[in-house]
Amino acid sequence: MMRYKVNVEYSGSSYCGFQKQTDIEQKSVQGVLQKAIFEMSKEEVTITPSGRTDAGVHALKQTMHFDLEKKFEAHKIVSGLNHFLYDEDVSILNCEITDEEFHARFDAKMRHYQYLIINRPAPLTLQKTQAWHVVTKLNLDEMRKAAKFLIGQHDFSAFRDSECQGKSPIKTVEKIEIKQDKEQITLDFSAKSFLHHMVRNIVGTLVWVGLGKISASEIKSILESKDRTKSGPNAPAHGLYFFGVDY
Amino acid sequence: MMRYKVNVEYSGSSYCGFQKQTDIEQKSVQGVLQKAIFEMSKEEVTITPSGRTDAGVHALKQTMHFDLEKKFEAHKIVSGLNHFLYDEDVSILNCEITDEEFHARFDAKMRHYQYLIINRPAPLTLQKTQAWHVVTKLNLDEMRKAAKFLIGQHDFSAFRDSECQGKSPIKTVEKIEIKQDKEQITLDFSAKSFLHHMVRNIVGTLVWVGLGKISASEIKSILESKDRTKSGPNAPAHGLYFFGVDY
Repeated sequence: MMRYKVNVEYSGSSYCGFQKQTDIEQKSVQGVLQKAIFEMSKEEVTITPSGRTDAGVHALKQTMHFDLEKKFEAHKIVSGLNHFLYDEDVSILNCEITDEEFHARFDAKMRHYQYLIINRPAPLTLQKTQAWHVVTKLNLDEMRKAAKFLIGQHDFSAFRDSECQGKSPIKTVEKIEIKQDKEQITLDFSAKSFLHHMVRNIVGTLVWVGLGKISASEIKSILESKDRTKSGPNAPAHGLYFFGVDY
Repeated sequence: MMRYKVNVEYSGSSYCGFQKQTDIEQKSVQGVLQKAIFEMSKEEVTITPSGRTDAGVHALKQTMHFDLEKKFEAHKIVSGLNHFLYDEDVSILNCEITDEEFHARFDAKMRHYQYLIINRPAPLTLQKTQAWHVVTKLNLDEMRKAAKFLIGQHDFSAFRDSECQGKSPIKTVEKIEIKQDKEQITLDFSAKSFLHHMVRNIVGTLVWVGLGKISASEIKSILESKDRTKSGPNAPAHGLYFFGVDY
C-alpha cells in the first residue's frame, strides 16, 4: 500500500463543500476527487483532508492524503488526476509519496486561512463569488485593535457554530493579520485548528467593529461571554480561502 | 441635455463583448448598460466607451459617456444604474457630470491594459476565466528584452488583426512592463491607442519568446516584417483587462 499526499486548489462555488454527501445529488470536492482517483486507479478510496470546508469556501492549498494498492510515481498522480478533473474546478498542485504514518488531519501543526473583503460602494463583478462585498468604509485600525484580544489561547465558544462537533472550544490563535491594498482587505488567520465557522464568525464580528457597530474592546467581552448570540454575523463563505497547512 | 461620464467594471465572461450586436441574441456590455439607463431614465441612449473590448475581455476601469435629457445627480446615476444591473457582471464605479465637449473615445490621452498569465503546471480553478494558463516556465528576462523592441512609434501591422478597422497601423507604445509575483505574471501596456487584437498578439509573441520558440531579438524582425503571419498566437481574451484611461 502506498500513501499519497496531495496539495489541492479548488473553487468552492461549484461544490456543496468538501465532504461527500450520501443523501444528496450535489457535487462535493471529496466526491469529484475520489471519482478521479477511481478513474485513474480503479481503486475506491476515501480521501482525508487537513480540514473540511463548507460550501462556497475556496482552497488555494489544501493538503490531503489517500492510499492506493497500486504504485504510481508522484508526477503521474498529478497529471492523471488533473486529466480526470478537467471539467472540474479542482486542481492537483503537487503530490508526494509519503510514509504510511503521515496523516493530513492529525499531523497538521498549523492551519492558515485567508478572508478577502472588497470594501467599496460599487457592486462586485469579477470577484462576485470570490470576496465579501462590504459597502461602508471599514476602520481597519479599530479592527486591528479588536483582533489583538483574540490572539492566544481562549475559549472561543462565542465564535463557534452550534453544530460544531469539536471536543473542546479552547483554541490557540497564533495570528490575525489585517492588510489593505486599495479596496482589497485581507485577514490572515493562523492556528493549529479552528472551531466550525470560527474564522467566519470572527470576521463578521471584526466587520462590526470596522463599521463602528461595537467598539474594539467589546470583542473582549463577547469572547468572555462564550455566547454565540453576542458575536457578529457569520461572514459569507465565498470570501474564505483555505490558505495552507504546516506539518 | 446632460453628459454623464462613468467608470465601469465588468467581467467579460458573461458577454459577447462590449458592442451591442443587432443580429444575435447574446448579451453585450453596451446592451445591458443601455437597458439599465433606459430602465432608470426612460431615455434611449447610445453609450460611448473609450474603447470596445472583445468577448471574454474584462475591464477593471473602462470610461464611457452618454447623454440624457433628464438631470440626475452623479451619485444617483451610480446607485440607480447599479440597482438595475444587479443581476449582471457590470458595475458602475463612479460618475461625474461633464461638459458636452467631453468624448470618452476621442479625448483619451492614454489607455492602459493589463494581461494576466498564471505560469504553473497545475490547471486553474478560481482564475479559469480570469487569466491565461501557461504551463511551461517562462523566461521573463528574455520577454522583457523582447518587449523593449516594441516601445516607441512603430508600424504594428505584424500585430494587427485582419479585421482591424483602424486607419493607420502606426501606434506609439509608451510602456510594456512585465512583473512577477510567484506564479502570477502581469504585463502592463500603455499607449494612446492600440490596433484591434494588438495587445493579445503582442502577448502571444512575447510568450513565444518566454518559451524559447523564438529569440528576443527576433521580435524586431517580426515587427519590421509588418506581416501578421510572422507573429505569435492571439493570447486568450480572458487574460486581458482594460485597466484605465487617462484624459
